[in-house]
Amino acid sequence: MPRFGGPATMMRLPTQETAKGLDACFVGIPMDIGTSNRPGTRLGPRQIRDESRMLRPYNMATGAAPFDHLQVADIGDVPINTFDLKSSVGIIETHYDQILSAGAIPLTLGGDHTLTWPILRAMKNAHGPVALIHVDAHADINETMFGEKVAHGCPFRRAWEDGCLDNNRVFQIGLRGTGYSRDDFDWSRTQGWTVVQAEECWYRSMAPLMQQVRDTVQDMPVYISFDIDSLDPAFAPGTGTVEPGGLSTWQALEIVRGCSNLNIVGCDLVEVSPPYDPTGNTALIGANLLYEMLCVLPNVPQGTTTP
Amino acid sequence: MPRFGGPATMMRLPTQETAKGLDACFVGIPMDIGTSNRPGTRLGPRQIRDESRMLRPYNMATGAAPFDHLQVADIGDVPINTFDLKSSVGIIETHYDQILSAGAIPLTLGGDHTLTWPILRAMKNAHGPVALIHVDAHADINETMFGEKVAHGCPFRRAWEDGCLDNNRVFQIGLRGTGYSRDDFDWSRTQGWTVVQAEECWYRSMAPLMQQVRDTVQDMPVYISFDIDSLDPAFAPGTGTVEPGGLSTWQALEIVRGCSNLNIVGCDLVEVSPPYDPTGNTALIGANLLYEMLCVLPNVPQGTTTP
Amino acid sequence: MPRFGGPATMMRLPTQETAKGLDACFVGIPMDIGTSNRPGTRLGPRQIRDESRMLRPYNMATGAAPFDHLQVADIGDVPINTFDLKSSVGIIETHYDQILSAGAIPLTLGGDHTLTWPILRAMKNAHGPVALIHVDAHADINETMFGEKVAHGCPFRRAWEDGCLDNNRVFQIGLRGTGYSRDDFDWSRTQGWTVVQAEECWYRSMAPLMQQVRDTVQDMPVYISFDIDSLDPAFAPGTGTVEPGGLSTWQALEIVRGCSNLNIVGCDLVEVSPPYDPTGNTALIGANLLYEMLCVLPNVPQGTTTP
Amino acid sequence: MPRFGGPATMMRLPTQETAKGLDACFVGIPMDIGTSNRPGTRLGPRQIRDESRMLRPYNMATGAAPFDHLQVADIGDVPINTFDLKSSVGIIETHYDQILSAGAIPLTLGGDHTLTWPILRAMKNAHGPVALIHVDAHADINETMFGEKVAHGCPFRRAWEDGCLDNNRVFQIGLRGTGYSRDDFDWSRTQGWTVVQAEECWYRSMAPLMQQVRDTVQDMPVYISFDIDSLDPAFAPGTGTVEPGGLSTWQALEIVRGCSNLNIVGCDLVEVSPPYDPTGNTALIGANLLYEMLCVLPNVPQGTTTP
Amino acid sequence: MPRFGGPATMMRLPTQETAKGLDACFVGIPMDIGTSNRPGTRLGPRQIRDESRMLRPYNMATGAAPFDHLQVADIGDVPINTFDLKSSVGIIETHYDQILSAGAIPLTLGGDHTLTWPILRAMKNAHGPVALIHVDAHADINETMFGEKVAHGCPFRRAWEDGCLDNNRVFQIGLRGTGYSRDDFDWSRTQGWTVVQAEECWYRSMAPLMQQVRDTVQDMPVYISFDIDSLDPAFAPGTGTVEPGGLSTWQALEIVRGCSNLNIVGCDLVEVSPPYDPTGNTALIGANLLYEMLCVLPNVPQGTTTP
Amino acid sequence: MPRFGGPATMMRLPTQETAKGLDACFVGIPMDIGTSNRPGTRLGPRQIRDESRMLRPYNMATGAAPFDHLQVADIGDVPINTFDLKSSVGIIETHYDQILSAGAIPLTLGGDHTLTWPILRAMKNAHGPVALIHVDAHADINETMFGEKVAHGCPFRRAWEDGCLDNNRVFQIGLRGTGYSRDDFDWSRTQGWTVVQAEECWYRSMAPLMQQVRDTVQDMPVYISFDIDSLDPAFAPGTGTVEPGGLSTWQALEIVRGCSNLNIVGCDLVEVSPPYDPTGNTALIGANLLYEMLCVLPNVPQGTTTP
Repeated sequence: MPRFGGPATMMRLPTQETAKGLDACFVGIPMDIGTSNRPGTRLGPRQIRDESRMLRPYNMATGAAPFDHLQVADIGDVPINTFDLKSSVGIIETHYDQILSAGAIPLTLGGDHTLTWPILRAMKNAHGPVALIHVDAHADINETMFGEKVAHGCPFRRAWEDGCLDNNRVFQIGLRGTGYSRDDFDWSRTQGWTVVQAEECWYRSMAPLMQQVRDTVQDMPVYISFDIDSLDPAFAPGTGTVEPGGLSTWQALEIVRGCSNLNIVGCDLVEVSPPYDPTGNTALIGANLLYEMLCVLPNVPQGTTTP
Repeated sequence: MPRFGGPATMMRLPTQETAKGLDACFVGIPMDIGTSNRPGTRLGPRQIRDESRMLRPYNMATGAAPFDHLQVADIGDVPINTFDLKSSVGIIETHYDQILSAGAIPLTLGGDHTLTWPILRAMKNAHGPVALIHVDAHADINETMFGEKVAHGCPFRRAWEDGCLDNNRVFQIGLRGTGYSRDDFDWSRTQGWTVVQAEECWYRSMAPLMQQVRDTVQDMPVYISFDIDSLDPAFAPGTGTVEPGGLSTWQALEIVRGCSNLNIVGCDLVEVSPPYDPTGNTALIGANLLYEMLCVLPNVPQGTTTP
Repeated sequence: MPRFGGPATMMRLPTQETAKGLDACFVGIPMDIGTSNRPGTRLGPRQIRDESRMLRPYNMATGAAPFDHLQVADIGDVPINTFDLKSSVGIIETHYDQILSAGAIPLTLGGDHTLTWPILRAMKNAHGPVALIHVDAHADINETMFGEKVAHGCPFRRAWEDGCLDNNRVFQIGLRGTGYSRDDFDWSRTQGWTVVQAEECWYRSMAPLMQQVRDTVQDMPVYISFDIDSLDPAFAPGTGTVEPGGLSTWQALEIVRGCSNLNIVGCDLVEVSPPYDPTGNTALIGANLLYEMLCVLPNVPQGTTTP
Repeated sequence: MPRFGGPATMMRLPTQETAKGLDACFVGIPMDIGTSNRPGTRLGPRQIRDESRMLRPYNMATGAAPFDHLQVADIGDVPINTFDLKSSVGIIETHYDQILSAGAIPLTLGGDHTLTWPILRAMKNAHGPVALIHVDAHADINETMFGEKVAHGCPFRRAWEDGCLDNNRVFQIGLRGTGYSRDDFDWSRTQGWTVVQAEECWYRSMAPLMQQVRDTVQDMPVYISFDIDSLDPAFAPGTGTVEPGGLSTWQALEIVRGCSNLNIVGCDLVEVSPPYDPTGNTALIGANLLYEMLCVLPNVPQGTTTP
Repeated sequence: MPRFGGPATMMRLPTQETAKGLDACFVGIPMDIGTSNRPGTRLGPRQIRDESRMLRPYNMATGAAPFDHLQVADIGDVPINTFDLKSSVGIIETHYDQILSAGAIPLTLGGDHTLTWPILRAMKNAHGPVALIHVDAHADINETMFGEKVAHGCPFRRAWEDGCLDNNRVFQIGLRGTGYSRDDFDWSRTQGWTVVQAEECWYRSMAPLMQQVRDTVQDMPVYISFDIDSLDPAFAPGTGTVEPGGLSTWQALEIVRGCSNLNIVGCDLVEVSPPYDPTGNTALIGANLLYEMLCVLPNVPQGTTTP
Repeated sequence: MPRFGGPATMMRLPTQETAKGLDACFVGIPMDIGTSNRPGTRLGPRQIRDESRMLRPYNMATGAAPFDHLQVADIGDVPINTFDLKSSVGIIETHYDQILSAGAIPLTLGGDHTLTWPILRAMKNAHGPVALIHVDAHADINETMFGEKVAHGCPFRRAWEDGCLDNNRVFQIGLRGTGYSRDDFDWSRTQGWTVVQAEECWYRSMAPLMQQVRDTVQDMPVYISFDIDSLDPAFAPGTGTVEPGGLSTWQALEIVRGCSNLNIVGCDLVEVSPPYDPTGNTALIGANLLYEMLCVLPNVPQGTTTP
């Protein structure tokens, strides 16, 4: 079958209804009602799956062969309520409680960033507070957006309120742009989180930073939340709240590959907006980053790296 | 000033904060969270305004010169809550109560079709039950969508429940496509409404139908709700829930022009979705239809028509 | 589940590997190597499935409810050889022999028009020569294209050579444009086929023509091959060999609906090219036409039509 | 050679530097500095040529085979001054004087509509005042635009001033939209011109109108100026000053085909704007209309028409 | 109000008709008739304003809070003559004389690069010769383009002729691509200007270069002219004369931020062409760079920078 | 003549039918039937030519002035058989045998990468085994793709089988992404080829690598095959098999410029797919890289480089 034929599942994997029996699962959340600017992430899971069709099983850079070590499937989408954001948050948390109770590690195809809050609640239910590697242009720690506490600019504030995070092991990488005051980033620092602004990353390899991340996180359960808008719009045009001066795909790959040998309990890739991605390449990059996350899950050996 | 320069207001009109002193006003509702399929209508008001820049004051077909007879301005957008649909519905109703109390006729730039429900509630507050000319591919009379009562497929059911409509003077024109049962259109008929399916319009002038509409509505207060998806996607590609087999722009113009000499109390043009409108032409057509609505408002004389 | 979530199967139907137990099946052929101009139809099946997501089970115009009477599923794609057109033709014929031996009626999502030749060979294997309703801008009866006998401009010449067609019951509707000589259309007429050029259709209902078609075909096994480029590019921009002056969606719907009460043994919808369809609307129209074909299959009662 | 290969000349014709020895020639004017709204027509000639690649020599509808009767080539573009509109007007007139002195009939690929003024001056130089068949959404008879006399809204006013037109034999077809007063169209009527507003064309064949045109023009030298924005934007989205409610391609073909047996001395197809034509289909339609104009030039016999 | 609602002014600022009472003002010049290749910059000001909607008041990287220290408004567009480039140049100079006489610093939204010439003339009128920081792919010092002295490839030659520049304090950064001879860049060097070709910037921080710029310019009045095509097309696809091998957004931000503590008297951001910017991201980057220019104007303190 | 006018030949060069009398020639291969994912490269030669229109004769970075030293023309396209990939391979080889026998160095505008195999066969026919500089995201050394030996993933395996390559002087630069096993890249290494994975290039100048290439190749005949997908999709979105983490245009220019003073016998630039390149910028970059290849051909002196 040509790769452009057949069912449009993530990486052309088999599908199943639940996470039962899986070590890891891809799961979509087709949501954009938490978005404050351009919409469209509701279609992200569909297009990420479609553009994942060229992904082959072996990671040429790291030597990882995840399917040799993990049972993986595409378990479809979370049936959110597209007319009610607050209701959808509850549906997501319940859905992830079930995935986690099946013992599978969820890799989430977003969807707007609101979704990370209910996932982190489920993570806490299963694992207690978790370490966090959050890659993004924005801190997403607003107390409210236009008066609302549930929105794609607030998930990490809500997760913090709910005690989902191990504050000494939270990293926010790629932050930049405009805000309302210095406190927009310093609030995070006040909680003990490590903020790495985009300017600190320019022209540099992310390998040293990731060594520091690994040294800090150690064997704590850790969650990875990767907002595609952390990338400069040159690399990821298809998203809703664009900020110039961002990361490159070189850095993005180093960040995810730098998460190897951690105790990863879940991952997400959010904010891909197909209507602003006429070539499909942003979704394709999202698919690649999700594959790279799969390659660093526990029990996937890293092979011989690039010479 | 070239027409592509200067402020991007509707028809390059002056702006003002409220409707005070106006006979008619253009007002935007930047909302898409009531949408069940493709998003993007939140950007509709901005693009309709932008593409309205070539509209000149005189209607070459009908001889109407609305600005000679009406005081008109662009009063900006309704500050909806983009994270909460139900809350937004309340904000809209209050906003339109104020417009109507100022004595102005609102011409609304949508926005998803959910918005017509709160507008009709405000209309009832001001005028009692109104006649309705509803042009659309869909009946939008669902009891619920995915369990929710507030959604872009339900506004006319809600308005009916709230007693906003004069059931003997409701026309739904252009309905078509797929549904769940015969009752999807027959519910309207059961209420006494007149349903004109798209198939009845094919290849035909709408003038005879509009004569019938005028004969029925007479001098009742009447509201016009025009969903751009009533048009065939050939004519209006930039919308969210596309149904082939629709109306042409020829028919759309005949329908709006056929509303002359009615007691119009308000109008809307909804469901323009800029992300699906790469040329801007759907917004431009929307702008033209809003202008044509302005041309048939009470007190605008119709001039010599096309020979 | 929102309609934009969940697996991207045709009409959100369940999938199965083979046609066993089905009355009708949707099947894709992701092929464009038979194309003489713009490519891209290899991606047609994927996008038709994606854009079919809003199709609901009941046909509001005709009253057909196909799923109440037929067992239908999406059986995926034919595993063509994308590097060898001639080899692919053989793969397709074998694949359809199997579908037909299971007793299912195939509705094909194309793919370039070359595919109709091997399907018609399978039809002949199962049913003997069949009547044909062929809707297209082009006759597709070239002896060769650039010296090759297998190409998207030749399928009906090849099928004729192979004795697949009942020459007194072949209709070609919508032909137009430029050619090499008068014989480009007269060859068909010489074989006894009925050619209805696009110019004969302009401004007219197709209902009288379809009455004539039904009177001629009677209860012969009949195959429907619908090339989306039969439509004017206003209605179907996303295709490879565009000819202005074509059919409207109104006419396309009348043609397919006019095939009710025939002994249909198979259908295809070909030449949707997603790279030339930035809004997805051409694929959406293709999905609708395939649904309308399903609604006229044998054993699907036609309900009360539009008043 | 595949049709998408080889040099991108009009209809894949041979090129030559001048019109010497030709009966007719295609010539481009890559200009958009006379445009009042969206730009881009400077790229029109290139894209019309590119998209003309599928045009074959025989007209299946009319039986015309122009290359059997006329010597035709693509003579390239007029070297306008892209930084000075008034200077360009002079360059164009001189260029066309030379074409006409070679005895060739020019078919022009525009370019914005300003270009028709200098061409009509050259026509007058060669033929005296000419009859005119002008198909357009706009009358283009403004005295000035923003104070300037040379602009794409003024060519026919300038040509009238210069005595280029036979006022009893001027037809303006497809006019519509908004203006400044009734006089925008009545000025033409005052000069004795025939104005056919778009509304008079809706749902109708153009054949009777063209019979009237032929009866009036008789054997006078006649020029055809076809602005692609005469078409409804459904049919020709890729243009700069869009007006809904326009002609269909069916009508456009009837208009051009209806010019057979006239003494045509020149033709243009203007206002194709590639940046607003993502599929290339508007350029393709322009190419087809230019081919149809070629098919009705003097000395091209009309064959057997559609049965 | 959601950020995508409300008037589309620059940064959602209030508007006023003139610069009176302002410290700085945003002003648009909707012009593209000086363009030698792809058009579209006439629409640049509108789209830059539209895409500026997410800009918040505080600069997270530099700590600047410009609105705490400056009175700023959007004063609309210059009413150029879109049919006459030379006339438009005069209109612009007069318009900027007025802005400068009001004591405001203009930040210009272009528009093609021709506009910098008349602005520099106005600058000289107000300040005498100015230092210049010119960021661009092209030197724009052509004596003529196709024989014309007024074009977007000539503004700095014209400004030099007019004595607008302090030749010892002119920097041209990012030049590259193809030309006619070595002199295309060496002419600048001959005048004493500093030319920094793009190749000298690759892989490097611009901070050391900007230190050198500041050391040289000192407290001279300095003008910043930023052509978006200085960026590599990966970062800024939406422009007319693209040259690969350009600057990154990282470097662009360093360049503008490196202008702090200079005596800036005016700035422009030119050559954004919306028709070649389907996502709007090039306009968005332009809006961000204009904001960064505002942040380095005199009297705006730089806060604590990135740790 | 404005650069956007006139014939769309490569760099606006004159055309001729054969390579006779030329030192170097541009030649197109309009082919995409060897593509395994997104199609469209059949249109690559046309769009590369179109977008080459701004290329001027002098290389501002290297001082090369190729047209002062070489006779160059555009010799059009190879007339491949678009319905038969294997047949096309033979046509290409024969065509290049003729070019080489005329003594011209071919610079090829692709087309999918399959074409490099027959070109390398012709190179061997003329020169014996050649050194190879292969820039690509993929090794393209598959034994088969989906069972076929002729495909765009196999050309270098086929060339190796045919003894076309000097195995000690083969460089593959930019490889990355996913595969089936470590052997996907190690097969090349086993043959003695040098593989430089993309990760080894990140953040670095390519100058040292190219010094090593030159030292190794010395004066052997060398062929350059440049797949545009070697670039990161940020820089070259318009291609079929996208892999994130690729080269920048800065590196691409260094690689080609680093080939100066080699005995280059031929070059190609492949895999530009216009349907995925809405701005045309990927074709434009391809055109620039082909120009840079011309600038390093034997007998073109390198001038003074960037200071």
